[in-house]
Amino acid sequence: MSDLLWQKPGVKVDARIQAFLAGEDVILDREFFLFDIQASRAHAQGLQRIGILSAEELDGLSRELELLAQDFSAGHFVLDERFEDGHSAIEGRLIERLGDAGRKIHTGRSRNDQILVATRLWLKDRLARVYALCRESADVALARAQAESALPLPGYTHLQRAVVSSAGMWWAAWAEGFIDDAVRAQQTLDWVDANPLGSAAGYGVNLPLDRDHTTQALGFGRLQVSAAYAQLSRGKFEMAAIEALTSALLDLRRLAWDLSLFTSAEYGFVALPAEYTTGSSIMPNKRNPDVIELMRASYSAAAAARTEIEQLLSLPSGYHRDLQFSKGAIFHAFGRGLGALELLPDLLRNLEWRPERLRAALEPSMYATDLAVDLAREGLPFREAYRQAADPARWAQGDPEASLAARVSPGAAADLRLHTLRERLDALPAATLSQA
Amino acid sequence: MSDLLWQKPGVKVDARIQAFLAGEDVILDREFFLFDIQASRAHAQGLQRIGILSAEELDGLSRELELLAQDFSAGHFVLDERFEDGHSAIEGRLIERLGDAGRKIHTGRSRNDQILVATRLWLKDRLARVYALCRESADVALARAQAESALPLPGYTHLQRAVVSSAGMWWAAWAEGFIDDAVRAQQTLDWVDANPLGSAAGYGVNLPLDRDHTTQALGFGRLQVSAAYAQLSRGKFEMAAIEALTSALLDLRRLAWDLSLFTSAEYGFVALPAEYTTGSSIMPNKRNPDVIELMRASYSAAAAARTEIEQLLSLPSGYHRDLQFSKGAIFHAFGRGLGALELLPDLLRNLEWRPERLRAALEPSMYATDLAVDLAREGLPFREAYRQAADPARWAQGDPEASLAARVSPGAAADLRLHTLRERLDALPAATLSQA
Amino acid sequence: MSDLLWQKPGVKVDARIQAFLAGEDVILDREFFLFDIQASRAHAQGLQRIGILSAEELDGLSRELELLAQDFSAGHFVLDERFEDGHSAIEGRLIERLGDAGRKIHTGRSRNDQILVATRLWLKDRLARVYALCRESADVALARAQAESALPLPGYTHLQRAVVSSAGMWWAAWAEGFIDDAVRAQQTLDWVDANPLGSAAGYGVNLPLDRDHTTQALGFGRLQVSAAYAQLSRGKFEMAAIEALTSALLDLRRLAWDLSLFTSAEYGFVALPAEYTTGSSIMPNKRNPDVIELMRASYSAAAAARTEIEQLLSLPSGYHRDLQFSKGAIFHAFGRGLGALELLPDLLRNLEWRPERLRAALEPSMYATDLAVDLAREGLPFREAYRQAADPARWAQGDPEASLAARVSPGAAADLRLHTLRERLDALPAATLSQA
Amino acid sequence: MSDLLWQKPGVKVDARIQAFLAGEDVILDREFFLFDIQASRAHAQGLQRIGILSAEELDGLSRELELLAQDFSAGHFVLDERFEDGHSAIEGRLIERLGDAGRKIHTGRSRNDQILVATRLWLKDRLARVYALCRESADVALARAQAESALPLPGYTHLQRAVVSSAGMWWAAWAEGFIDDAVRAQQTLDWVDANPLGSAAGYGVNLPLDRDHTTQALGFGRLQVSAAYAQLSRGKFEMAAIEALTSALLDLRRLAWDLSLFTSAEYGFVALPAEYTTGSSIMPNKRNPDVIELMRASYSAAAAARTEIEQLLSLPSGYHRDLQFSKGAIFHAFGRGLGALELLPDLLRNLEWRPERLRAALEPSMYATDLAVDLAREGLPFREAYRQAADPARWAQGDPEASLAARVSPGAAADLRLHTLRERLDALPAATLSQA
Repeated sequence: MSDLLWQKPGVKVDARIQAFLAGEDVILDREFFLFDIQASRAHAQGLQRIGILSAEELDGLSRELELLAQDFSAGHFVLDERFEDGHSAIEGRLIERLGDAGRKIHTGRSRNDQILVATRLWLKDRLARVYALCRESADVALARAQAESALPLPGYTHLQRAVVSSAGMWWAAWAEGFIDDAVRAQQTLDWVDANPLGSAAGYGVNLPLDRDHTTQALGFGRLQVSAAYAQLSRGKFEMAAIEALTSALLDLRRLAWDLSLFTSAEYGFVALPAEYTTGSSIMPNKRNPDVIELMRASYSAAAAARTEIEQLLSLPSGYHRDLQFSKGAIFHAFGRGLGALELLPDLLRNLEWRPERLRAALEPSMYATDLAVDLAREGLPFREAYRQAADPARWAQGDPEASLAARVSPGAAADLRLHTLRERLDALPAATLSQA
Repeated sequence: MSDLLWQKPGVKVDARIQAFLAGEDVILDREFFLFDIQASRAHAQGLQRIGILSAEELDGLSRELELLAQDFSAGHFVLDERFEDGHSAIEGRLIERLGDAGRKIHTGRSRNDQILVATRLWLKDRLARVYALCRESADVALARAQAESALPLPGYTHLQRAVVSSAGMWWAAWAEGFIDDAVRAQQTLDWVDANPLGSAAGYGVNLPLDRDHTTQALGFGRLQVSAAYAQLSRGKFEMAAIEALTSALLDLRRLAWDLSLFTSAEYGFVALPAEYTTGSSIMPNKRNPDVIELMRASYSAAAAARTEIEQLLSLPSGYHRDLQFSKGAIFHAFGRGLGALELLPDLLRNLEWRPERLRAALEPSMYATDLAVDLAREGLPFREAYRQAADPARWAQGDPEASLAARVSPGAAADLRLHTLRERLDALPAATLSQA
Repeated sequence: MSDLLWQKPGVKVDARIQAFLAGEDVILDREFFLFDIQASRAHAQGLQRIGILSAEELDGLSRELELLAQDFSAGHFVLDERFEDGHSAIEGRLIERLGDAGRKIHTGRSRNDQILVATRLWLKDRLARVYALCRESADVALARAQAESALPLPGYTHLQRAVVSSAGMWWAAWAEGFIDDAVRAQQTLDWVDANPLGSAAGYGVNLPLDRDHTTQALGFGRLQVSAAYAQLSRGKFEMAAIEALTSALLDLRRLAWDLSLFTSAEYGFVALPAEYTTGSSIMPNKRNPDVIELMRASYSAAAAARTEIEQLLSLPSGYHRDLQFSKGAIFHAFGRGLGALELLPDLLRNLEWRPERLRAALEPSMYATDLAVDLAREGLPFREAYRQAADPARWAQGDPEASLAARVSPGAAADLRLHTLRERLDALPAATLSQA
Repeated sequence: MSDLLWQKPGVKVDARIQAFLAGEDVILDREFFLFDIQASRAHAQGLQRIGILSAEELDGLSRELELLAQDFSAGHFVLDERFEDGHSAIEGRLIERLGDAGRKIHTGRSRNDQILVATRLWLKDRLARVYALCRESADVALARAQAESALPLPGYTHLQRAVVSSAGMWWAAWAEGFIDDAVRAQQTLDWVDANPLGSAAGYGVNLPLDRDHTTQALGFGRLQVSAAYAQLSRGKFEMAAIEALTSALLDLRRLAWDLSLFTSAEYGFVALPAEYTTGSSIMPNKRNPDVIELMRASYSAAAAARTEIEQLLSLPSGYHRDLQFSKGAIFHAFGRGLGALELLPDLLRNLEWRPERLRAALEPSMYATDLAVDLAREGLPFREAYRQAADPARWAQGDPEASLAARVSPGAAADLRLHTLRERLDALPAATLSQA
């Protein structure tokens, strides 16, 4: 590793301890690197505005930061164990190229607010992706709800056959779910959209940093005012972002469960294109829906990340090194979670119903509830109607289309109110994704 | 237990199994009972609007529901193991008092949407309390930040003395934290503010239920449209509500940690009124800050509740009995969490600084960062200034007030921007708490 | 509440704070009360042996403790909010009945070691129950594996039909699983079987307490030597006990999942006696396997308890009030977990296969792996044999009995090695359950 | 990626889906690779013993497996994205080098039991490391307890000064803790020490695999009998291994907390060698105990891994692709956990007490409990003695050495019973670490 920024002369270094301290830190910093460069540029602009840097120094720094970003993206600059972390790598490069201008970049800044601002920009970007994918998934589900509103589907509770349902009802459920998830992602994005840059190590500095400028230059919705709170929000904002992600993943997990059952031989309701399945190393006959199973399993990574971070946060105020471990946790959560969500819209587009299997699963008992309600509408007290309809002698194979057509309560098969969902979806703002 | 609604003639009952199924369910339903009654009244109104109930029947039901609420609140009606659950208790009472009108109340309704709507009203109420308590805590913190902005306080990172900070900075951090927490609670309240009543068992019914009426009568912000999604949101909305709670509890945990240290003999920064402490059964000399420790520990109940619910939610769509266990979990989380938050505003009002101890903890090294920045402002590249200021020979006891006065970066001691925080706090809407 | 042991004259008491501190503590202490009494008797014996109590005083204390236990068990003594906690209740009762002898019982003891020893005895008891139930479940599974070894059952991976399996294989899996779980419970019981009584508040006392006597009198396997470690083991031992419980519950959750599928209409493999099912409030046709679903869901309570405790344990050494919250957590975990496990042996005895449905689910592709291995045995390299057997043209409906008879790898259908499992099960020691 | 083992002709491949399925799988397999090779050799031996392989084929396979292990260890063979996973890489290499002998290696084996056996060997190895490090840490702590038994140390409860304690008591606590942790690791190692190889995809095969041979050849303590249970134990055994790890990490977390406080300026009890500390990028004065903080934080990785796995395990029996995600989780837990534990023995050896600071923290109130017990020994009922000793007028600065000398209860300062702990430690078996 190159020299440490903070190392003092004469201090013995223990290689095992250094390895433990370094961990995988610098490798993880690759995720943040472009955001860190972006924030460093804004910080330099701020320094120039208060006279710490000259216009020429700012120009040099801006140019070199831009070049570094290009080199990194092109693979010409590799962030690896030569550096203590991404922050040191940026400062080191600027010093190497620019000398004293590079030695000035860290004025009024700590690695504490540097990592905070890079994390914040990264979280905003990832939440925007969650948002966009939930919107797209809702859009697909809504279109299929419209198109397949009349297709009968068995309705279950407790995995037991209950009443006649419809593909329209099934799709509308996911549509509303993913709209909610998009809203949650958007709310959360707004909530974390506050600029921590300029808070230094949590106590500010004796310089009139132009934090309003950096807030605006980096596209933040507001200033995170208190320097000490900026530190307190480390982990807390990550937890909220993960929660927004898990909201979508909870729905995805249940959707994947449905598909896992529906693609089994016993149900046989759904056919998946072959590219969604894999084979076995020993059983020549197998086609397994691995994609669906890994989608279902993706929730666990987000849950794990939450556990990891919340365990770290039993601490007094101020920065503690423990907090560093929150970094890998969010990469794990969003890496797995977004990986699964990215495949979702196409999966929803591509799955095919097998109508004859759906119909074959509708049995006489599934009309008993309709019957009980019919009796109640005719004046029989419901509890008595229920008793009469519980008699299997009164059950008969019904007409599923008629059952669906009569299901007129709002949100049920005959009155799905898809226009209400469509309006809510269309009212959502467009997503803003970074290029990073 | 009284007869079961759904029991069929001739089915053998096993007492151990019944006890396992019942669990503590009916006792837990006490928390929901008034909300369940409120929703039952709205449901009855809806039934009358579509002709299932006559105006007289509705009058009778409304009156009896009101009486039941009064009896329950007064302790004259006890919800206990005589009933399968709160829902059955309500229906049973109405049948007992009104006969056929009572037998009609469950028309077009399932216990599934009945529990959903009661839970939803309860969650809204609890989130409103979290919101109100966070607002109040932020308000106290903001006032003390203003009043004590000039009181020097040692600033730490890694529990090591770092730079001079101020009581103002400390209070402002919590103020901004609890404002954020209030916003999160409000966002979450809006997000869950959707009416599931009328979704029945997740598939609607063959009746044109007036869901728009019940949405408006119960004060919901919107209709939860899809009947199948209403079921999918069970647990999911609870998770979001718990997340909003944990946001506040994360801050409370760190605040309690600060106070746990600050009230130790080693720090001695804070004095707590005696009523916040307890004694020991064996050590006559002890006064322990148990209140602070239990506040700190309250986070764990909310984390546990989240674990409990998310473990339940690996399920296909539709209702499953597993979901019932989400009920006790939210009571545990909000019971502990609100119990702690309710004591917070007064604790913040009542804690007293011990200024001489604060001052005694300020040592020469804590001015080194100011020095480095001063040198940088005068033109020395920061990395070189840092090197020079790292020399202990250059450290000297400084003037804490001067250090604070020079800390002019926005959000630091000399520019706390409390007005920005105050504006944000004042812009928050008033909380609406139920009477339940 | 009665007077607090430790209360000093003139200290103001705040009712809200007292309520927060008390929480549900004294109610929870009911679970421990008999163990606390038992340990108090052993402590008194120890005090007599070192001359703190006279023989008469010990007789009095022993008699009153016995009476208190009887009164409590008979419901004549109710542990409720009149007391700060169970410990104070015992001491208060002894003082009330015996005067100074009662005032001596707490000599050399703290509530810290008092709660530790009661918890330890309780954990040992609950682990013994887990152990006994796992042994019994394994025994039933083993007997059915023997009896039903020849019954063909479809074998699945990824919920896709894979190869022919047998009821024998299915039962043997659970048998071995629950044997492992019994061993884990026993290991854990041994591990926590250490006496903390006599460690006082974590620093011992200036009295030669006869800890070897109390260790033997209370039936502990060893002395927990270090007074300070006794405190450090609070929560740590609870975590281990919960882990042993979760080992069994992980298996139960997967077993319940199998039964949830097998009792569905789509699978139809298993019939459950009617007492294991419940009905619906709205759908007259439903019989739902709620017992199985709640068994499956019981894992979540244990997982929640673990989360709750581990969140509390990020603390320096020594006692902190936070640790008190570990108490409710273990009650929740073992309450739910043992409730589910207690129904398991009978469930395993009572479930019935539907052989015609099992057989109907066996399809030609499920013999393809046998074919590939047959070809390999005849000399074809397996990877080539696999390729040939992947051709659906070569698949044909096979004879399931012949397939099972040929499955001769150890642990497979034709060589289940049940005797090995039986020997392991029979070698386990008998369980020792308390009367508490 | 090279051709997939199981791919059928004509199936469309979607690159995004393949990337999602592959994930980081093959990279993670590097951890297992040597164990996979070792188990492959044992499997080949077994195949030769039942006539599937000739002696020559076995020789060739053994030689090539050995070469592959050497190439891998030397970095000449890189396991990367060219392969679907490590299992395919081994088979592919053997086919490339040996042709048909390579095509035979997978006879009677599935990737399911292949990953199980590699995981099992890896878990055994890692538990042996945990065990060895806990033994070593206990040994150091015991030696220092002996050496520093007379050094007074303030004793705390609730972070409040309580009674005089000693360095001997502090060290003895950790000694007993890490002995327990070593025992737990050993118990767990025994528990998981069962051979799953030969269970194929969970249903065995139609070949008389010599599983007793592979059990012995791989050094397993017993055969994991049931083929179906081998699958059920996936994740379950990982959970137990993580639990054993967390037992040690719970103690490490609390130890690190002590040291975090003790190295603060306010306590000042402990000095750490400079190599255990790092500096700040902005504050020239800082030396931060980062090593201790990361040790404390390591618990969170293990907790996260447990969450991740347990979330995956809500599944019916049989293999599901979800289970694959348990792999990364155990690497994360043991990577972080062992990384921290490896530094522990030296840290314990190297930390230095600052006796003058310890002594300065002893204050008169800390002798009050001794006084109360003294009065009780003289005959005053303890509850009355407590009352008298609560009077600050009776508190006086005492002699810490005398206080320690009088603390004669077993496990306290004057009777630490280190010999009992030493005997227990010495009775533990030696650890067996793999070379992998």
